[in-house]
Amino acid sequence: MIRVGVLGATGAVGQRFVQLLAQHPWFELAALTASDRSAGKRYGEVVNWRLDVPFPKEVADIPIRTTETKSLSDVDLVFSALPADVAGPVENACADAGIAVCSNASSHRMDPLVPLVIPEVNPDHLALIDAQRDAGRDGFIVTNPNCSTIVMCLSLAPLRKFTWTDIRVATMQAISGAGFQGVPAMGIYDNVIPYIGSEEEKMETESLKIMGSLDGKTVRPAPFRVSASCHRVPVLDGHTMAIWIDIREPVEEVRKAFTDFSPPVSGLPTLPEKSVVLLDDQDRPQPRLDRNRGNGMTVSVGRVRKGIRYVTMGHNTIRGAAGASVLNAELIHKKKYL
Amino acid sequence: MIRVGVLGATGAVGQRFVQLLAQHPWFELAALTASDRSAGKRYGEVVNWRLDVPFPKEVADIPIRTTETKSLSDVDLVFSALPADVAGPVENACADAGIAVCSNASSHRMDPLVPLVIPEVNPDHLALIDAQRDAGRDGFIVTNPNCSTIVMCLSLAPLRKFTWTDIRVATMQAISGAGFQGVPAMGIYDNVIPYIGSEEEKMETESLKIMGSLDGKTVRPAPFRVSASCHRVPVLDGHTMAIWIDIREPVEEVRKAFTDFSPPVSGLPTLPEKSVVLLDDQDRPQPRLDRNRGNGMTVSVGRVRKGIRYVTMGHNTIRGAAGASVLNAELIHKKKYL
Amino acid sequence: MIRVGVLGATGAVGQRFVQLLAQHPWFELAALTASDRSAGKRYGEVVNWRLDVPFPKEVADIPIRTTETKSLSDVDLVFSALPADVAGPVENACADAGIAVCSNASSHRMDPLVPLVIPEVNPDHLALIDAQRDAGRDGFIVTNPNCSTIVMCLSLAPLRKFTWTDIRVATMQAISGAGFQGVPAMGIYDNVIPYIGSEEEKMETESLKIMGSLDGKTVRPAPFRVSASCHRVPVLDGHTMAIWIDIREPVEEVRKAFTDFSPPVSGLPTLPEKSVVLLDDQDRPQPRLDRNRGNGMTVSVGRVRKGIRYVTMGHNTIRGAAGASVLNAELIHKKKYL
Amino acid sequence: MIRVGVLGATGAVGQRFVQLLAQHPWFELAALTASDRSAGKRYGEVVNWRLDVPFPKEVADIPIRTTETKSLSDVDLVFSALPADVAGPVENACADAGIAVCSNASSHRMDPLVPLVIPEVNPDHLALIDAQRDAGRDGFIVTNPNCSTIVMCLSLAPLRKFTWTDIRVATMQAISGAGFQGVPAMGIYDNVIPYIGSEEEKMETESLKIMGSLDGKTVRPAPFRVSASCHRVPVLDGHTMAIWIDIREPVEEVRKAFTDFSPPVSGLPTLPEKSVVLLDDQDRPQPRLDRNRGNGMTVSVGRVRKGIRYVTMGHNTIRGAAGASVLNAELIHKKKYL
Repeated sequence: MIRVGVLGATGAVGQRFVQLLAQHPWFELAALTASDRSAGKRYGEVVNWRLDVPFPKEVADIPIRTTETKSLSDVDLVFSALPADVAGPVENACADAGIAVCSNASSHRMDPLVPLVIPEVNPDHLALIDAQRDAGRDGFIVTNPNCSTIVMCLSLAPLRKFTWTDIRVATMQAISGAGFQGVPAMGIYDNVIPYIGSEEEKMETESLKIMGSLDGKTVRPAPFRVSASCHRVPVLDGHTMAIWIDIREPVEEVRKAFTDFSPPVSGLPTLPEKSVVLLDDQDRPQPRLDRNRGNGMTVSVGRVRKGIRYVTMGHNTIRGAAGASVLNAELIHKKKYL
Repeated sequence: MIRVGVLGATGAVGQRFVQLLAQHPWFELAALTASDRSAGKRYGEVVNWRLDVPFPKEVADIPIRTTETKSLSDVDLVFSALPADVAGPVENACADAGIAVCSNASSHRMDPLVPLVIPEVNPDHLALIDAQRDAGRDGFIVTNPNCSTIVMCLSLAPLRKFTWTDIRVATMQAISGAGFQGVPAMGIYDNVIPYIGSEEEKMETESLKIMGSLDGKTVRPAPFRVSASCHRVPVLDGHTMAIWIDIREPVEEVRKAFTDFSPPVSGLPTLPEKSVVLLDDQDRPQPRLDRNRGNGMTVSVGRVRKGIRYVTMGHNTIRGAAGASVLNAELIHKKKYL
Repeated sequence: MIRVGVLGATGAVGQRFVQLLAQHPWFELAALTASDRSAGKRYGEVVNWRLDVPFPKEVADIPIRTTETKSLSDVDLVFSALPADVAGPVENACADAGIAVCSNASSHRMDPLVPLVIPEVNPDHLALIDAQRDAGRDGFIVTNPNCSTIVMCLSLAPLRKFTWTDIRVATMQAISGAGFQGVPAMGIYDNVIPYIGSEEEKMETESLKIMGSLDGKTVRPAPFRVSASCHRVPVLDGHTMAIWIDIREPVEEVRKAFTDFSPPVSGLPTLPEKSVVLLDDQDRPQPRLDRNRGNGMTVSVGRVRKGIRYVTMGHNTIRGAAGASVLNAELIHKKKYL
Repeated sequence: MIRVGVLGATGAVGQRFVQLLAQHPWFELAALTASDRSAGKRYGEVVNWRLDVPFPKEVADIPIRTTETKSLSDVDLVFSALPADVAGPVENACADAGIAVCSNASSHRMDPLVPLVIPEVNPDHLALIDAQRDAGRDGFIVTNPNCSTIVMCLSLAPLRKFTWTDIRVATMQAISGAGFQGVPAMGIYDNVIPYIGSEEEKMETESLKIMGSLDGKTVRPAPFRVSASCHRVPVLDGHTMAIWIDIREPVEEVRKAFTDFSPPVSGLPTLPEKSVVLLDDQDRPQPRLDRNRGNGMTVSVGRVRKGIRYVTMGHNTIRGAAGASVLNAELIHKKKYL
């Protein structure tokens, strides 16, 4: 068993990490960190558990540690659920101290030596870990993309056999993407908020790195453009998005590509039976009905029409955050980077 | 005062008609029709008023008539809030009987001789009324577009000075668009439904007719393409949409076009001070906060970005339905077609 | 394995039955009935699956039968998810034909010879089955109470050691209680509807039968009064209720009664670890966070204050409907009534 | 015209005050205060207007002042929309400086010399103003009750002719009661929160003072008991409550009392045509449909049943907060206390 920790274990994404790791076959949840004032208390005392799955009792007595390298000397890998404004230096310090860091924070995603990985899309990018080691680090950082970007890129993976240059994507994003306190009810109830800070930029840049090609120790961005329009809607979990992509092949071939998709990885505990599923009903995918497919790790696609237009949807805090990071860690372990 | 009636006065759109006509300066609400079993009762007895504005007491005692031509001999103009599956023949019969029909139903929108009009966009298309008369009719039919189409086309009107060929639009539509009973709460709560029957087709075809040019007694469709993706979101009123349009001019010129827009009509009671308003805040328009601008008749625009991308929003049952039809009737009256 | 069927298997409660029975250790799902026009098709073709748990593939190929006794000759027990207006005679016919009927419908709940049972509250009432048999029936009918009544009565069970005469209960009930189509989104969104047809009467009468005492072959109603005020709120699943009960003992004793509660049944597959759980946090129970406790079978209690006042909440379509009926069937089987 | 100010003019209740005062026939909006960092800027720059009524342009240029007595030397009366934790001393300082204070804050509500007034219920309590002056103050403080308490007490006012000793009330309260930021969407969406801090205590104590009798310069609390259970539901505006009251008269007499109610005040601009209205439909009042009756100042009552039980509902930020305070100020002015 690999000993792992979660940095920022009491927040929305932190709780998802704890849920996914409580009974993990490969990883032993050894360390949970939170703010200094919680340090020393038990996780069960400190956390205000707000997921709609029951609190995993086996983690209740884990003592909270401070979010510092010296608190983490007995773990091999940490998952970072830290907010972007503090994640950067903490993650660097961990990596310098020889710890493997799987981060959901945006701080290092676009660093040239840091892989930005979705296992089903660009597992080969993990080779950048060697570049980090060559640069003198004992540990390393691996990041997963922004939640919307993950869902979009998973839906694009089956389409790689086609040629395209322009993607337009309109998102309808869930409230949980902003954390528990992020969206006041008075703001979003009976409403749409047509703006999410930095989200469009993330979708437009991260996707090119993910789908880019590895050239030695460098990722060359993919040669297409993404134009995003991001909106918050009154949905708890599950980001839905309408995508236009200028593929010239007929709808049936595109549908077949979704159906035939087989990702280049296998044998990972968190990998769902199907990473991308094409739904036939004309009114699917729907976040409430489809977000829990594959334990929240399956991205659903539907309504493939000429254009090419389609709709895709995935669980933003599982597939788009904690689950993405855990899957990365599983791939790292399987590829023997630990 | 012009004597007017409302066909289908008890439904969602019918109630909006009654609200807008109860104290209209030009129109006297003389006739309200509903199903045969309600005929003879008073409107106040029959209607289950569900708007969040108070019931207009002055209409409570109007007796319900059947929806037949012979019941309507004393009115000059009728507003049709009938469902599409019954509107067609009833509206034809009224027009044949010499009555002016302003219809919100889709049945006759694409008929070559029937104008599909938004006063601020294509008031000249009313000339088709003469074509209908030339064809031997005593009365005539004028239609307003589908709710989403109206909001989109109003946002396009200020951009006519530019050249474009492709529009992509992703809608986030309100529940009220489907009528009171149309959307079960179990279907839409905490959810997005990425399909609205025939909505995409309507946006793609009606918009070309509206923005087309009048050539004698024929409308030549506008030479651009619309590709729509329509979605229902948990919002009561107000259709929000993200639009991409391939205009090459810089953002500032596009913004200026929105700001400078002055519609080619004036002096109509239901015409708002501004038909299109550009909002500066980066998180606007929002349906709950902006749908009632201009008494529900103003379409709001925001987030004009390079692409050109922008967001637009309008009240679907006022600007997009009953108010649109009343505004058409006002224009018809002003242009002396009655 | 007992061969069982579900009458009305495609509706909201019917789907819950199928979910709970798909992999049941004692019951084999042998028959599914629906309307005549679906008969002969496969369940997977006919059902519009709307639960947020995945469709159980093992039931997809079960052929739909008509809802008639002659279609059910090979099953030992049927669960009735029929609407109240058709359930009465169908259930009678089944019972006459020798089938055991576990019904969620209200039709026979107050029949003197039909037990109205919650296993943790009045398992002894099953003795009425013998009374039905004495009356000449080959099969029998056992009913479970209305959803709100079940939640309330489970919360009352631990309080039986105290004396009381008056209960006042204000409910905040979920949308799913009315079925998929029952509540239009335009009716309940941003709203409370302070009326649910017959609900108050059901709570006021059914609870007295359930908590009544068995006297030979007759149930003597419990000697207290219930005064209910029932309201629909915008929640998908989970009925919350505020209860006043005139118990004179101090709060701590009442809390202890909840904590110490041990139901008089055990060893039933659907019985949760705790049928009633007392939550300590002052803002619990909450439907979204607590409805899935015990796989939806646990009723949560909180905020016990002087008065005595408390709040209770349970999952209305699992604990309050399909799960209640399945638990009854398990008890019937264990008590060897089959 | 009386020159008035609003303390805390940018928050949720502050904005409601500004809305109600922008075109008031008796009061001139002369001063708006906010935090020190906003002082000197124009209101239009500083406020993030979030009401669904348009921003009143006439107030856009009013400069923001600090919330200090010395900033308020030119006003006769201030409305306090300050949070409870700062309102206490600020309001005292204003009153000491000779300013009349109409406060929505809870700080001074239970002070023996401060009247807690609903004009339609206890206008005579304003006599306590003289007691404050006798105690040496130049100005004075008048408070309005908590939002839930106001709605409940208005519904009780018509019932004063009857005798009762016990009231039980279960509330279903709107999100706006907690201010714009008060309730995270992740907390309340698809949920009920059965706890609102201090709300039950406020309903139980304030109501006795309001309905108490004035005995010289002292209010003797009313001799009944209130037992409240307060719950937050996903509704934007409008507090709904189910009330039990032990009146022995038959339902018809109670209904008649509601219908016949005539408040002991008149001629106040904000006073609605009916302060309490009895609705006949069995599914009313509903917050979304009824909260705007009487411009948000009418409290609706329905479902009067034996028990006596009934349901009441009122707009919490208008009738229950800013409108209540403005109505108090109008009464103060009319009674010549200024």
